[in-house]
Amino acid sequence: MKRRLLLVSNSTLHGGGYLQHCQQQIQDFFGKNVKRILFVPYALQDRDAYTKTARDKFITLGGGNTFRLLKALYDNKLVTEIRKRVLEDGIPYMGSSAGTNVSTISINTTNDMPIVYPPTFAAIGLVPFNINPHYLDADPNSKHMGETREQRIVQYHEEHDTPCVLGLREGSLLLVEGNKATLLGSTKARLFKRGKHTTEYEPGSDLSFLLTDAQ
Amino acid sequence: MKRRLLLVSNSTLHGGGYLQHCQQQIQDFFGKNVKRILFVPYALQDRDAYTKTARDKFITLGGGNTFRLLKALYDNKLVTEIRKRVLEDGIPYMGSSAGTNVSTISINTTNDMPIVYPPTFAAIGLVPFNINPHYLDADPNSKHMGETREQRIVQYHEEHDTPCVLGLREGSLLLVEGNKATLLGSTKARLFKRGKHTTEYEPGSDLSFLLTDAQ
Repeated sequence: MKRRLLLVSNSTLHGGGYLQHCQQQIQDFFGKNVKRILFVPYALQDRDAYTKTARDKFITLGGGNTFRLLKALYDNKLVTEIRKRVLEDGIPYMGSSAGTNVSTISINTTNDMPIVYPPTFAAIGLVPFNINPHYLDADPNSKHMGETREQRIVQYHEEHDTPCVLGLREGSLLLVEGNKATLLGSTKARLFKRGKHTTEYEPGSDLSFLLTDAQ
Repeated sequence: MKRRLLLVSNSTLHGGGYLQHCQQQIQDFFGKNVKRILFVPYALQDRDAYTKTARDKFITLGGGNTFRLLKALYDNKLVTEIRKRVLEDGIPYMGSSAGTNVSTISINTTNDMPIVYPPTFAAIGLVPFNINPHYLDADPNSKHMGETREQRIVQYHEEHDTPCVLGLREGSLLLVEGNKATLLGSTKARLFKRGKHTTEYEPGSDLSFLLTDAQ
């Protein structure tokens, strides 16, 4: 398994610039010798402008709307191709937010609005579990009565009996190298397993157990 | 057009009891002579418990997860049947949150997590536009970097050129009687039209123009 993945919760952290919070990890991930990066701009409507933004920053990313991104990946027959290139050929993959969602087993745990209908919620499947990016703790002072993020993930597990859901708070990222997964960044991550208590993990934690199918 | 609909943003308002904020409107809507109510418990996993809650309150509602509700409506071949009974036979329909989403033209503007994959996002179509229940104004003090609700609805309109989206804040409800639509409740509603400025409407506003296909 040659995969090398850098899965970022969010592209901008409050008070910082665009992808500034994980700039060092991005440099370490791609290294100094990378010459070409394939940027997938499908998650925003204006693909040229989005590509220019990414090129100006000299980085790849994958923010925007998860449903739009996944549908365009299928429309352009890229899902299988990306999976093959990353898992078999070892091409590094980096995603942020929507780009993180589509790299996992499915987009069932996205926070985005379902603005378009993809042919399936199954995604690229570079890892055998789900991620919830922008994971948000419940605000005890909020008067809003919508479900908390935790309640939504519990509802997901009512319907699916296999995958774990890793809640990546803003500022978190997951580095995957082959069969090794490490939590990086400045915030803790929260792991949801069906019918179990949730677990908090500190930055630096080894999360390689998530990569085995049994989990 | 015999339709009579009561579409509620949310079942519980902060500081109040279950459906307390619209109790009077529910009583007015169903009247004193109603003997039987069909309750659709599909949006939560434990259907028996959910039905008992509804029966205990002597009211119908439709909260929970929109994707689960819509999928179960299709699985049980109820979408066409409900549409016929409401639009042709004049059976009153009341929904809250998820039940409001599925009554509109599609669930493209739900806030829920896509925990299951329905056969389409097209919904019952009792009204020819979209509703965003639990509509939430951006919090200028928030440090969370996820998209605002308004940004999400703008992204929806980037993909679809017809329907308006009515943002029903918590405490808002829409009463539809034939071709007349009236905003009720304690909070204003926000209307999004593609490429236009948004408009705010006070409780009591006549929104019948939303029911014409041209809008």
